[in-house]
Amino acid sequence: MTERARRAARWERWSEWPLLVLAVAFLVAYAVPVLDVGISPSLRRTCDVVQWVAWAAFAVDYVVRLVLAEHRARWAATHALDLVVIALPLLRPLRLLRLVALLNVVNRHATIGLRGRVVAYLVGGAVLLSFLAALAVLDAERHGAEPNIQTFGDAWWWSITTMTTVGYGDRFPTTGDGRLIGVGLMIGGITLLGSVTATLASWLSDRVRAEADADVDALTQEIRALRLEIAALNERSGGEPDQASHGVR
Amino acid sequence: MTERARRAARWERWSEWPLLVLAVAFLVAYAVPVLDVGISPSLRRTCDVVQWVAWAAFAVDYVVRLVLAEHRARWAATHALDLVVIALPLLRPLRLLRLVALLNVVNRHATIGLRGRVVAYLVGGAVLLSFLAALAVLDAERHGAEPNIQTFGDAWWWSITTMTTVGYGDRFPTTGDGRLIGVGLMIGGITLLGSVTATLASWLSDRVRAEADADVDALTQEIRALRLEIAALNERSGGEPDQASHGVR
Amino acid sequence: MTERARRAARWERWSEWPLLVLAVAFLVAYAVPVLDVGISPSLRRTCDVVQWVAWAAFAVDYVVRLVLAEHRARWAATHALDLVVIALPLLRPLRLLRLVALLNVVNRHATIGLRGRVVAYLVGGAVLLSFLAALAVLDAERHGAEPNIQTFGDAWWWSITTMTTVGYGDRFPTTGDGRLIGVGLMIGGITLLGSVTATLASWLSDRVRAEADADVDALTQEIRALRLEIAALNERSGGEPDQASHGVR
Amino acid sequence: MTERARRAARWERWSEWPLLVLAVAFLVAYAVPVLDVGISPSLRRTCDVVQWVAWAAFAVDYVVRLVLAEHRARWAATHALDLVVIALPLLRPLRLLRLVALLNVVNRHATIGLRGRVVAYLVGGAVLLSFLAALAVLDAERHGAEPNIQTFGDAWWWSITTMTTVGYGDRFPTTGDGRLIGVGLMIGGITLLGSVTATLASWLSDRVRAEADADVDALTQEIRALRLEIAALNERSGGEPDQASHGVR
Repeated sequence: MTERARRAARWERWSEWPLLVLAVAFLVAYAVPVLDVGISPSLRRTCDVVQWVAWAAFAVDYVVRLVLAEHRARWAATHALDLVVIALPLLRPLRLLRLVALLNVVNRHATIGLRGRVVAYLVGGAVLLSFLAALAVLDAERHGAEPNIQTFGDAWWWSITTMTTVGYGDRFPTTGDGRLIGVGLMIGGITLLGSVTATLASWLSDRVRAEADADVDALTQEIRALRLEIAALNERSGGEPDQASHGVR
Repeated sequence: MTERARRAARWERWSEWPLLVLAVAFLVAYAVPVLDVGISPSLRRTCDVVQWVAWAAFAVDYVVRLVLAEHRARWAATHALDLVVIALPLLRPLRLLRLVALLNVVNRHATIGLRGRVVAYLVGGAVLLSFLAALAVLDAERHGAEPNIQTFGDAWWWSITTMTTVGYGDRFPTTGDGRLIGVGLMIGGITLLGSVTATLASWLSDRVRAEADADVDALTQEIRALRLEIAALNERSGGEPDQASHGVR
Repeated sequence: MTERARRAARWERWSEWPLLVLAVAFLVAYAVPVLDVGISPSLRRTCDVVQWVAWAAFAVDYVVRLVLAEHRARWAATHALDLVVIALPLLRPLRLLRLVALLNVVNRHATIGLRGRVVAYLVGGAVLLSFLAALAVLDAERHGAEPNIQTFGDAWWWSITTMTTVGYGDRFPTTGDGRLIGVGLMIGGITLLGSVTATLASWLSDRVRAEADADVDALTQEIRALRLEIAALNERSGGEPDQASHGVR
Repeated sequence: MTERARRAARWERWSEWPLLVLAVAFLVAYAVPVLDVGISPSLRRTCDVVQWVAWAAFAVDYVVRLVLAEHRARWAATHALDLVVIALPLLRPLRLLRLVALLNVVNRHATIGLRGRVVAYLVGGAVLLSFLAALAVLDAERHGAEPNIQTFGDAWWWSITTMTTVGYGDRFPTTGDGRLIGVGLMIGGITLLGSVTATLASWLSDRVRAEADADVDALTQEIRALRLEIAALNERSGGEPDQASHGVR
């Protein structure tokens, strides 16, 4: 481990909690003006400031991690999504998915297997993603030409029906921004569906194999017991136990 | 096994059937006023009483099992869903999913493999869940502002199109309660879809492996036959059969 | 193989083609009055007769196979679906799924693996099921109170959007019969989706394993070559090749 | 490798880039008149010419590859789709899926595993397919009787909601051609969903196995260390280390 790598690790450890707090502050500052249209201008300005501070902090974090990276070009390639999230205002709420990282903190003290962690990430990610998408689509659609998503209840209902690929069509976005959010949700929903299925398939195949193994184990036990009995029989009749056991084996 | 664990097991064995009967009674007492709006006040009151009695019995069962648990904190954590179901009136019908436990009773006398049981639970759970959701959504939607689910037929049709994630949008809930039920159904539907796929994948991978194994087995048979023929040849030509077979092995 | 089992096998071989021909005749006699409302009464009567004859033939086939079965109770249990299809007029068109059995005939002369056969059954079954459901739903919906499925084009479009769980909601059944057909289609669609996924998963896992095995094989080859070189070296230097090879092993 | 096979390989290598360029030219010549209805007649004629030239080049490529094939009948059978794409004007844009082959070129210089390549093909194929279907459906629907897909934005939104099987139903095709394109998209979407799930399942099962293997490896290490300690003990006590280790093994 080089000196630089150690400093990068120290930075990540040190910045973890402040960035999480800023992400939550960003969420609140983003949600308040969206949920309540009639807030006072001063509060609205405060929210704007909080959003910009949080954005600046994340940009600084990106630059610091890039500078401290061992191989900068490779780091930039594998963290392209981070740059996109910082550059595009529309994707900014996605930063909140960092909250899912909280699970990591919880996880250190728990002893959950890989599948358990996948399930925890799925549930956490799905709840957060549907909530964020509802906020964002409400923001985008409310002032559209023919809006049919106008309350947060409608927006969340829409985001859940979209993520699960049910898609009733009682609510749907009509603006370009709203549709982009919808496409993101659909991709998230397909991944969600796929992950649920994959987890179930992995669990089931393990259980089936365990059952088969249990059968084989039981059989092995039976055979071993049988062999011991034969060996005992042999010994009693004055035979050669060693060779007999060799033959059975 | 401690004395307490034995008492817990005895309680579960003893309470299994009464609780199932109460769950069915609850279902009937819940369904009758929902399906027939014009029932007499006295029958309606009887239904209310039955629902409360069933609810109390389930609460008692929860407390007894908690008291008899070896590690109470851990038991409470792993049975959090039971508490939620008892505490939230909306989720109460979910208790009927206990009926699926009937399959366990059937299962003891049958010899179905793990996959067979998964399929049985899937079918039983899907039918029961769609029926319960139809009842609950009809109850919630009928008095909404602009209801479009007004008969039990519509409600069941809606619950099935939701569970399968088809979602035509000819029927959809408009109240908060109705939408909550919808979200539950979608999650159930995704799990259903995932389980069907996982079961099929597990079955197919077993079949493919069995086919491959059959090929290997056939090959092994061929080689064994060949070896015996060579050994016979060797013996006839005055060679040393023991070493030859050792070499082939 | 008992005498009865041989007779059962002979019956199945003998009845295979006549039943397939009758199934196709049934399809035509079922489709013609559905597709063309204005046919002459005599043609309509002919179609009715053909349908009844086909139905009678399938009932006779069921009885004969039941009588010739080794264990009648078990046969009836495993062929419960056959009885349901014969008893319920609504499900009668399902008999056409027998046409998929044609694939069996084709298959005998081909050398397709298990996955290939699964794909062939999927494609055949999906096309046939969507076509049959379109016919049946057109028959059921045309005379409904507020029909929105009135041409065969609309019906087929509806059945495909339902099977794939897309469910636009531009066309949907409003009668009880039509909705039952829809539920059947949705279940078929979920199974279809699941089978496609399972087949892809099985194929992918085989490919990944083959890639890993290829790596191991290459490594094994390398080691074997190395070992031979060492043995040659050993021999040249007057060492004991036998023990050396034993040590490497 | 025969002389003919070598010439076939040379043809494929030689024709790869020209055909890709022609495919892109075809795409542009196809897209321009669809996206902009009011282009000048001369530009429209140029687009027509480019489309015909591209079509002719693909037909020639098909014939050449058929002539150079080792077993022509088998080649025609395995490349039936190529012939269908050339013969049916509606499917012609599908030829653009060849652009996905670009990934192959990229791939040669990269070191991505099988799963990485599957993901790359999925993403590339999904973007291209949804874009092509949007173009084609706009072309087909714009002049329908009651069109509700009239801008490219609407068309792409529709194609994405269809591929992900969400299907709101705010936009849907009403003409025969448009519906055919929709069916193709749905099949593509199901395969897409299935591939995502299969990839996730394969990844997860590998990770679970790796975790289990790590456990086994740790155990093996433990046992080996234990054995060494026992051997050391044995040696110190004047025992026979060789036999002891043999017995443990």
